[in-house]
Amino acid sequence: MKKFSSQYQRYKEIVDQQLRSCVRKNEPRSLYQPVRYVLSGGGKRIRPLLVLLSCEAVGGSMRQAQHAAVAVEILHNFTLVHDDIMDNAPSRRGRATVHTKWDTNIAILVGDELVALAYRELLKTQSPYIARVADIFTEGVVEVCEGQAYDKEFETRKHVSVGEYLLMIGEKTGKMVSVASEIGAVIGGGSASEIRALKLYGTAIGRAFQIQDDLLDIVADEKEFGKTIGGDIVEGKKTFLLIEAYARARGADKKLLRSIIAGGGTAKKNIPLVRDIYERCGVVELAKQTIARNIAGANEQLSRLQKSRARDMLFWFSHMLLNRNF
Amino acid sequence: MKKFSSQYQRYKEIVDQQLRSCVRKNEPRSLYQPVRYVLSGGGKRIRPLLVLLSCEAVGGSMRQAQHAAVAVEILHNFTLVHDDIMDNAPSRRGRATVHTKWDTNIAILVGDELVALAYRELLKTQSPYIARVADIFTEGVVEVCEGQAYDKEFETRKHVSVGEYLLMIGEKTGKMVSVASEIGAVIGGGSASEIRALKLYGTAIGRAFQIQDDLLDIVADEKEFGKTIGGDIVEGKKTFLLIEAYARARGADKKLLRSIIAGGGTAKKNIPLVRDIYERCGVVELAKQTIARNIAGANEQLSRLQKSRARDMLFWFSHMLLNRNF
Repeated sequence: MKKFSSQYQRYKEIVDQQLRSCVRKNEPRSLYQPVRYVLSGGGKRIRPLLVLLSCEAVGGSMRQAQHAAVAVEILHNFTLVHDDIMDNAPSRRGRATVHTKWDTNIAILVGDELVALAYRELLKTQSPYIARVADIFTEGVVEVCEGQAYDKEFETRKHVSVGEYLLMIGEKTGKMVSVASEIGAVIGGGSASEIRALKLYGTAIGRAFQIQDDLLDIVADEKEFGKTIGGDIVEGKKTFLLIEAYARARGADKKLLRSIIAGGGTAKKNIPLVRDIYERCGVVELAKQTIARNIAGANEQLSRLQKSRARDMLFWFSHMLLNRNF
Repeated sequence: MKKFSSQYQRYKEIVDQQLRSCVRKNEPRSLYQPVRYVLSGGGKRIRPLLVLLSCEAVGGSMRQAQHAAVAVEILHNFTLVHDDIMDNAPSRRGRATVHTKWDTNIAILVGDELVALAYRELLKTQSPYIARVADIFTEGVVEVCEGQAYDKEFETRKHVSVGEYLLMIGEKTGKMVSVASEIGAVIGGGSASEIRALKLYGTAIGRAFQIQDDLLDIVADEKEFGKTIGGDIVEGKKTFLLIEAYARARGADKKLLRSIIAGGGTAKKNIPLVRDIYERCGVVELAKQTIARNIAGANEQLSRLQKSRARDMLFWFSHMLLNRNF
């Protein structure tokens, strides 16, 4: 395990290094200064890691997929910059967001430029499958926009079904995870069944990751997690937990949850109360089971691939996700 | 000439039709309703026309370049939607802008989605040169963002040189015009020199078009042009005329122009005064000459190509630009 952890660090450094060097221009300063700020902001680099490992897992070399890996990460950063404007988020990863540090106009433009830079990196990929890779990537961008639109629509809606929530979150955050593993496999020259397995691996991992995120909001260690515990409850964010709990709760519990959903949040003092409802109606357990089921599904997909170091590392990766507290 | 004019209408209808049909989805409504609104908003469709004609002018067929033509127009519309947010523009082509009719968040997302849709259309192009086409297109997107960043930077700067203005406008609006003619020529299977000629044709046309736009602000017929005459002067927009005039004017004239530049505009009553300065220091004449020189340069590039109906229509197109009052 320790071996994979240091391997992950190594991959992360390669990606970080490439992200820093992919922009060489300084002018116009109003554009490239914040672009650099975003690209040097750190992050877990999960998506590029999946591109690289998926490429290797079908017999390709990491080098072939390097540009695509960086492209996927740049695109992810584009979504963060624009989403932060729409969510009025003051900070991200412990630093001021672009629209806070500069202004909204600059943040709009920085996001736009990041999309262009993502495609520029992607198109540096030397591969006979580049047209297909670009297609998959583009469908990813379309779905990310759709997912974000649903997310904003749901904010003002009183009722969102579990199915709608899963559709939204699948498009908004899950899709680019499966795009990552799928294009890695395509670039690596995988067979149709290998590509399919890695795509489904990404889908399952993406869903597990998102539900884990929702869960960590109420169970994580505040210092390690870097977010305020219960923040989603205070904001009235429609998470897996809130939506599933609302569908199950009765009486006073349901009334409280309804007021959180309809009123767009609740007072901080209600966090323990809501956590208690979550526990009592079994959605904390349900979330854990759903994560475990998705991870199991992800691993089942991996087992269809030939044995390799990269495949082992992808197994490690799902295991780590299941136990992460970051 | 009448022949070309009706041919132009025919091409325009094909593009309009494809723009309407390229989005089949209705959900999420908050996204696709404004996307449709934008794509059905009309426009001169100059860029797609250039893609189609450039493809034909090197011996390709219009059909090959159809998706790329639509892609270039969708991308153009993306820049309008996001620029309108940044410029606080209430209307465009006689209709409310997206951020006015809906809101800023939706306009951000609609712009993002349009970029994705543009790539989706572009990538439908069946061509052995698709990777190169995507490269050229992507460099276009990068430059458009850079140009817009310069434009916003210049708004708050007291002095902008003629060179800086030309760089900015070349990136912001000229680049996608030359991208249009260049990718048309690439898709049509043009030789290196044909592609170069059509790219340079686009560059020259793009520059002529922009200076014409600046000029029309003070000389056009208000009803036909659809904008308020002198609007650029009132807003203090750094146009070719204002920047060239500032470099040439002396005494009280210079003082007035300086106040317009520094203060970001002037009262409506000063429009005739400023027009008079423009006339006296010769920048109206200079603008006309610069347009004519660029059109001549554009035509010189065309003369390098084999004779064809499409080439004749491109000649007609430059002629029309020179005499347009729209």
